[in-house]
Amino acid sequence: MYEVIIIGGGPAGLTAAAYCLRKRLEMLLISPELGGKANYRVHLAGLEGYEHITGEEVVRKFRSEIQYLDFAYLRERATHLEAKPGQPETFVVTTESGKTLTTRSVILATGAEPRRLHVPNEAQALGRGLSYSAVSHAPLFWERETAVVGNTELALRSAAELATIARRVVLIAPEGLVDAPLKSRLAQMANVTILEKYQLVRIHMDGYVTGITVRDPHGHEQDIPVTGVFGELGLKPQSDLVRGLVDLDPEGYVKVDDRCRTSRPGIFAAGDVTDSFSEQVLIAIGDGAKAALAAYDYLLATTL
Amino acid sequence: MYEVIIIGGGPAGLTAAAYCLRKRLEMLLISPELGGKANYRVHLAGLEGYEHITGEEVVRKFRSEIQYLDFAYLRERATHLEAKPGQPETFVVTTESGKTLTTRSVILATGAEPRRLHVPNEAQALGRGLSYSAVSHAPLFWERETAVVGNTELALRSAAELATIARRVVLIAPEGLVDAPLKSRLAQMANVTILEKYQLVRIHMDGYVTGITVRDPHGHEQDIPVTGVFGELGLKPQSDLVRGLVDLDPEGYVKVDDRCRTSRPGIFAAGDVTDSFSEQVLIAIGDGAKAALAAYDYLLATTL
Repeated sequence: MYEVIIIGGGPAGLTAAAYCLRKRLEMLLISPELGGKANYRVHLAGLEGYEHITGEEVVRKFRSEIQYLDFAYLRERATHLEAKPGQPETFVVTTESGKTLTTRSVILATGAEPRRLHVPNEAQALGRGLSYSAVSHAPLFWERETAVVGNTELALRSAAELATIARRVVLIAPEGLVDAPLKSRLAQMANVTILEKYQLVRIHMDGYVTGITVRDPHGHEQDIPVTGVFGELGLKPQSDLVRGLVDLDPEGYVKVDDRCRTSRPGIFAAGDVTDSFSEQVLIAIGDGAKAALAAYDYLLATTL
Repeated sequence: MYEVIIIGGGPAGLTAAAYCLRKRLEMLLISPELGGKANYRVHLAGLEGYEHITGEEVVRKFRSEIQYLDFAYLRERATHLEAKPGQPETFVVTTESGKTLTTRSVILATGAEPRRLHVPNEAQALGRGLSYSAVSHAPLFWERETAVVGNTELALRSAAELATIARRVVLIAPEGLVDAPLKSRLAQMANVTILEKYQLVRIHMDGYVTGITVRDPHGHEQDIPVTGVFGELGLKPQSDLVRGLVDLDPEGYVKVDDRCRTSRPGIFAAGDVTDSFSEQVLIAIGDGAKAALAAYDYLLATTL
């Protein structure tokens, strides 16, 4: 019986693990890989020496700690989670290879996946001009030509941020934009072009992103030179493991309070899988610490 | 007119500043000192090579950044904050030397002060056996003799955590303990002694903490050898600047939502001054990032 099982090895999961180890809890971190999006670096032609403030060093340190303590790390995917009746409940985690592990508490830190654009060259362009997060990477695109793809407030917000930084922003809304105050402000900005009902057809690459092809509502294609593309179609939270066990919001994010507690005692969640604002690595680190301390307090009050 | 003024130079304030700089906001950080409790290190006799996981490196990096950019840092205390009518409101910060500075938004990161024990040797003992946070430092006291001073759930929780680590825990409750489930569990633990209505009279030092003197309800004094003392009388949030401007909770903490927004548009808060759980440096760092991004979004939607 573990005291805590952490599912997910990104910044939130690794930080939670570091705290649980420090609190001397019997713990196991289950994840097919470690580092999460902190592994992901942006490369742009002609941009050197950019200093990240993403908390990469913190993540690196926690990752080496957990890699060294192999009794605390299972390099696998967790495929199923269920609650076992009891006072208090315990939990059973099943992994891909069929292992079943029981635990007094669970910290879910499985993250969220960006919705893909599904265009040629998408995989090659990632990190070389293509980003799924203007909040994180917009400042790198100073005086560049850029495109944003999306239909929602998120896309409007990303285009507005880029408009203060980039030379030009082309906002492509394949399904048309939502009505929002930012839309009319964007329409008035000299360096913003809005293309509603246009489709993104292709990303052009030459080592880095060099342009895109878009198709207008009448089917005509057109090339636009850009060095940055932001896919802002939203995220898909990886919350299937706890569906039915804890409250999710309509988009599938795990609802948590300000201590990262879910609606079910004994299950905690941190990072991008939660309905709390995260996205930045440093925020995920802070929430991972919060979740570990909340799990510790829960164990202290029940079974330690 | 600044776009954002950050008040407070601890982990939350420094991280908020780093993010605001990265977002190219016109910003000023006002604080008589930088680093906050990340400056504070624990030293114990016979304990070497303990590795902190406090995010000190992150704080150090942000501190050197802001020290280098002297146009963004005012080394003073902010003494007054007021809102100026307008659409949207703006804010005026007054400093100790009488400067008045106007800004479109404010991030409050002034922290919280531990309530002191008010006994001889308290200042010398701090960081050399005396701590105000068992959550942060209990794991260092493995197999040591310790004392906890406090009357509330916080003190019970701290004693319970220490009881899993330390050889012995003496819980001194000068006003008597609150009734809580943890109290009866503590009373049953072999390594816990509860002294209700005892007063802490003195901390003994010999380079490090070596013991305490307590006075029982009848006035008799007694020495107890301990190497660790935890003052768990609670924290006093430093929220006077915003009293009357934003909603505070009954203890004076600034109420914030999960994006560090206060009840007043344009005022944000992060770290120990808020009613969100913080205490750990890594959590304060995450919340500082959150507050900066929320302030940025606010400016993006109103005036940028």
